Amino acid sequence: MLIRLRKRLPPDAISRVLRVCTELGLKARFLDGGRELLELEGPGGPEARSRLEDLAGVLAVLDAGSARELFARVPPGPRQAAGDGPPVGDTVVQVGAARFGGGHVSVIAGPCAVEGEERLVEIARGVRERGAAMLRGGAFKPRTSPYSFQGARHAGLERLARAKLESGLAVVTEVLDPRDVEAVGAVADMFQIGSRNMTNTPLLVEVGRSGVPVLLKRGFMATLRELLLAAEFVLAEGNPNVVLCERGIRGFDPSTRNVLDVGAVAHLKRATHLPVIVDPSHAAGRAELVRALARAGVAAGADGVIVEVHPAPVEVHCDGHQAIGFAELERVVADVRALCALDQRLLVTPLPQEVLP
Amino acid sequence: MLIRLRKRLPPDAISRVLRVCTELGLKARFLDGGRELLELEGPGGPEARSRLEDLAGVLAVLDAGSARELFARVPPGPRQAAGDGPPVGDTVVQVGAARFGGGHVSVIAGPCAVEGEERLVEIARGVRERGAAMLRGGAFKPRTSPYSFQGARHAGLERLARAKLESGLAVVTEVLDPRDVEAVGAVADMFQIGSRNMTNTPLLVEVGRSGVPVLLKRGFMATLRELLLAAEFVLAEGNPNVVLCERGIRGFDPSTRNVLDVGAVAHLKRATHLPVIVDPSHAAGRAELVRALARAGVAAGADGVIVEVHPAPVEVHCDGHQAIGFAELERVVADVRALCALDQRLLVTPLPQEVLP
Amino acid sequence: MLIRLRKRLPPDAISRVLRVCTELGLKARFLDGGRELLELEGPGGPEARSRLEDLAGVLAVLDAGSARELFARVPPGPRQAAGDGPPVGDTVVQVGAARFGGGHVSVIAGPCAVEGEERLVEIARGVRERGAAMLRGGAFKPRTSPYSFQGARHAGLERLARAKLESGLAVVTEVLDPRDVEAVGAVADMFQIGSRNMTNTPLLVEVGRSGVPVLLKRGFMATLRELLLAAEFVLAEGNPNVVLCERGIRGFDPSTRNVLDVGAVAHLKRATHLPVIVDPSHAAGRAELVRALARAGVAAGADGVIVEVHPAPVEVHCDGHQAIGFAELERVVADVRALCALDQRLLVTPLPQEVLP
Amino acid sequence: MLIRLRKRLPPDAISRVLRVCTELGLKARFLDGGRELLELEGPGGPEARSRLEDLAGVLAVLDAGSARELFARVPPGPRQAAGDGPPVGDTVVQVGAARFGGGHVSVIAGPCAVEGEERLVEIARGVRERGAAMLRGGAFKPRTSPYSFQGARHAGLERLARAKLESGLAVVTEVLDPRDVEAVGAVADMFQIGSRNMTNTPLLVEVGRSGVPVLLKRGFMATLRELLLAAEFVLAEGNPNVVLCERGIRGFDPSTRNVLDVGAVAHLKRATHLPVIVDPSHAAGRAELVRALARAGVAAGADGVIVEVHPAPVEVHCDGHQAIGFAELERVVADVRALCALDQRLLVTPLPQEVLP
Repeated sequence: MLIRLRKRLPPDAISRVLRVCTELGLKARFLDGGRELLELEGPGGPEARSRLEDLAGVLAVLDAGSARELFARVPPGPRQAAGDGPPVGDTVVQVGAARFGGGHVSVIAGPCAVEGEERLVEIARGVRERGAAMLRGGAFKPRTSPYSFQGARHAGLERLARAKLESGLAVVTEVLDPRDVEAVGAVADMFQIGSRNMTNTPLLVEVGRSGVPVLLKRGFMATLRELLLAAEFVLAEGNPNVVLCERGIRGFDPSTRNVLDVGAVAHLKRATHLPVIVDPSHAAGRAELVRALARAGVAAGADGVIVEVHPAPVEVHCDGHQAIGFAELERVVADVRALCALDQRLLVTPLPQEVLP
Repeated sequence: MLIRLRKRLPPDAISRVLRVCTELGLKARFLDGGRELLELEGPGGPEARSRLEDLAGVLAVLDAGSARELFARVPPGPRQAAGDGPPVGDTVVQVGAARFGGGHVSVIAGPCAVEGEERLVEIARGVRERGAAMLRGGAFKPRTSPYSFQGARHAGLERLARAKLESGLAVVTEVLDPRDVEAVGAVADMFQIGSRNMTNTPLLVEVGRSGVPVLLKRGFMATLRELLLAAEFVLAEGNPNVVLCERGIRGFDPSTRNVLDVGAVAHLKRATHLPVIVDPSHAAGRAELVRALARAGVAAGADGVIVEVHPAPVEVHCDGHQAIGFAELERVVADVRALCALDQRLLVTPLPQEVLP
Repeated sequence: MLIRLRKRLPPDAISRVLRVCTELGLKARFLDGGRELLELEGPGGPEARSRLEDLAGVLAVLDAGSARELFARVPPGPRQAAGDGPPVGDTVVQVGAARFGGGHVSVIAGPCAVEGEERLVEIARGVRERGAAMLRGGAFKPRTSPYSFQGARHAGLERLARAKLESGLAVVTEVLDPRDVEAVGAVADMFQIGSRNMTNTPLLVEVGRSGVPVLLKRGFMATLRELLLAAEFVLAEGNPNVVLCERGIRGFDPSTRNVLDVGAVAHLKRATHLPVIVDPSHAAGRAELVRALARAGVAAGADGVIVEVHPAPVEVHCDGHQAIGFAELERVVADVRALCALDQRLLVTPLPQEVLP
Repeated sequence: MLIRLRKRLPPDAISRVLRVCTELGLKARFLDGGRELLELEGPGGPEARSRLEDLAGVLAVLDAGSARELFARVPPGPRQAAGDGPPVGDTVVQVGAARFGGGHVSVIAGPCAVEGEERLVEIARGVRERGAAMLRGGAFKPRTSPYSFQGARHAGLERLARAKLESGLAVVTEVLDPRDVEAVGAVADMFQIGSRNMTNTPLLVEVGRSGVPVLLKRGFMATLRELLLAAEFVLAEGNPNVVLCERGIRGFDPSTRNVLDVGAVAHLKRATHLPVIVDPSHAAGRAELVRALARAGVAAGADGVIVEVHPAPVEVHCDGHQAIGFAELERVVADVRALCALDQRLLVTPLPQEVLP
């Protein structure tokens, strides 16, 4: 590791930094006369890095060296080595018929919130027929106001179970409360951790322990390092099945609900071996822009798309402005397939329904 | 209420909106030939408003009328009335010796994280002597990385209990997990809901049910309406003791850690009857700027200040860059007192220690 | 037009608004008893709208009706009509061999700043061979510091003239000062108005008067309406040849220099008939992400790409981190061509060099 | 200087960096085996720094050492010295009766735009009587739309000249175009460079050459280093009379027009010897919040306030929502005076009118 200290740090603060280094089993050496640059040698992992970053007087860790995290594309290695080891290959996360990463691209589609059971089954079949490999649908909804519809909750989970059975599609649904992880996990093939809960670490730890795959949405104002460290909370519990999702950051222009950060997709594909998908529905906030943003995300390298679909957007309980209909989903899937072909990637679609047992 | 529909909404969408209005007991009337402006009359509360906002086709609620929330300074009233009723007076939240709102200003001080017991007692006494009316200190720490120090946890709560006893100061400490509300509430005189948990609605509901006062920090990218609606989750559970805290929003300039939004303080004092305080430590991220920001916050109308204090910042486990020492705290308290005097507000300080039973 | 007044506006303010309406030849009618919604009928153009927006007491123009601007995709029409007229078709801007809009896509490539003449000619030929239809290169450079290289200035213009001649490519170059419009226009086939000058209205007026095509970059913190109104300054001078450029907005994450706002591209293609291109180089700020962002921009609907290219990025005078080499440009052009084919759009490339006179 | 290179930079890039160092008369020495940290010794000024920052392969200048700029509070000094020299004392900028910096605080007040002459004289006298030391008023207005009122222009300058004469107050007014510097400078005692022109370097150079004091507003999305470097364009032309102005940055919450960044004020007072004032009117965008923001700015250390005042806000041609009346100005001035007293600073007010010759 290479760390930079504050300028003219008082001797007792320097001593304290050196003492912590010794405790961590790291050999420290100042590179410069001004005692601002400290090179550390030894087996320190990311815990060592975090401990050092927290110290008063430490400005920045300039080179993490061996202290890399589980999410890192480049494996940990000593700082002075001729070079780092070969980058880690893509993690492929498989959920039912869907696969994300390693050249596999999948589309997740479904309503914002779970409504009536018949409607949900109709949607599940409809999106499957149009090439979606997974169903999305919220039973527990995170809402800004206590007076808004908070989702069908446990009844919603039952309807999702039925829709799974009827459509053969795996299901991703949001969990908001660590106390609900067990109940939601009994139905969900994949947990969604929403944008507002990216920093909810007790929840991240709980879904990490569950072993169930996790779709982790970027907080709408989170840096990419914050997103990756949120994923690390799940990985560190022994659950390797994390799919990251870029869903738009908060901007200042009212034309779109959020700003889809395609540079984040491109950067994440280099920084981590975890799959990355995009959510054009929440980014756009307007149905008529969803298709363009889905294209942009996959063109930037995303391993999938999650999109809100509703056959009758006018009846939607929440976020109705951004749901697309079946016909538009068909166009989105066709676009994604064509974009995959440009790259020798594969759009994964479910087997025909009749093949189901 | 007055709502605006999308332009050229199809007849079935309009019918659906009107049907929902009827269900809500509201009489609807279009104001214009273009059928975009709908005036609603009736006893609809904020639930009605939320239900309408969620409807596809509804662009915005232009005037909430009777649908105002519990936090509102101006009480709900019918839209066409000659005027709204008189504004609601300030809620005064009392926690131990501290009072916030209604012309009362208090300073909360203490370490970022609870460390050793002797140290904590020393700090508690030290901040009390310098005029702080409450002690802050984190036992459960929200951290960006799973490898960072997550706080002394239950041991930290015990140390807080001891520091309360020794100093006579009431204590505010953060709670991160709804499952910890009971344990934390056994010690805390006030729960802190941190910036990262402002949207953690299960946690808000749980602290709402506890009846214990709540210090609710604004998410670093939350709008003021989002903050107020987060407070509403607590108020709606019957807990009126909510203090809002502006702690800086995420900006783009590295000179300060966050941007203290003093305009938010000024706006909130008009929009709600709840007290508002500022956290200059997290806003500045640099000890040498804390005093200036504390002054700015109180000058803008804040009912208090929460500030990180440590007698030996060099030893701090986290965020050591931003803690101020006792001498600087003394200057901050003096500034706050002087600013209160300009306004006929009162800085509330604890009784001298010897008066304690 | 439909405008919304502040609530409970005093009678003299209302009278003043009504007087201004009369002066503008508009018939005004309140829609509601609360006197907040005012419907205006008459031939008022965008000047009327601006005048009204400036008035104290006017909260917002909800519907511009006939007051639409020259950039608008949807033509001006009366508010109460059965519907607006058909949308305006794409403006096609032609600059030398390049065409933007109406299904035509072109790539502009070249160095950040003009350096030596031989080098520039080499680059011009190199990018032409790889499919770029225009050459970019800065002679006058906008810099953050007065001590930075400000460009080769007039000598740079001469070198651009030579590179044009040798390569047959049209040239776009930045103008910073209204006093330089004539000199720069003697060489440039297209003026670039950089991000920092989007709000420099005297400069916009001057390039508007010149009649030379204009590449107008979005300010890195400008809303899309602000960008379109900046274009309107050029259009209003009788110069219809404006190409808009999304080049990334300022974000909070250091992974990329800026955030390429692909939602802006998608929105602009609906809001205006003007062509829209993307600048992935300034958005990414890192050569290795440029290709992904170029793809994302064109997939979102952009009519072209402007990209920094340098055969030896290590020698670049400014922004060397973001220039790509010839081989990568070839990949970018191939990607753009493939993306165009998905949409039945056409990548416009220059005629083979030997055909030149 | 201490600079950090990219990791594993190829040998030819390293050679080029070293060659440039030699050209600049700097002795370079690698601090580490990985060849990432380069210490430079020698008399290199800010030009050297800029040249190095521009080089491909240079990640960051970690310590500017002798390359500090004219605006810097801490004077340039060699890197390895025992310490830097004593900080530079405050620059005091005097404009007519007003003084900014060095413990002097002044209030600038007046209308957004210059309207009729009688009205302007009335305002000038009115603000003088209430303690403002300078008059503000725009003759040339920067507007977002070409159809908005662009100011009374040359006629406005004449009216300003008359108001100066009648009130005895010095005048600050905006200049938008380098070609207008002479005409505006014939009347203005101080040029205003508006937020949208902070990066208009030809304009900065021109006002720098004029020698007339400059009020430089921070771009609404500019970092503080960008603001200081904009000031450097003026200082480098030999004009030391620059007053910086924080006027709010663009945020995401509609409650205020912009976010007044009081942390910027506190930081700037440490980073530069130039005076810093705040503009609460543009920050708030709402008259009722102006007073609170003026207080916050001065409490944070600002050397003055510039505020929009109009005796009949309802008649204002632009930005009428944010102008305060005479009575509120009186309260603002009283607040500023009281805040100055807390700090042993002095509010500078004009001599009584009758003393004028």
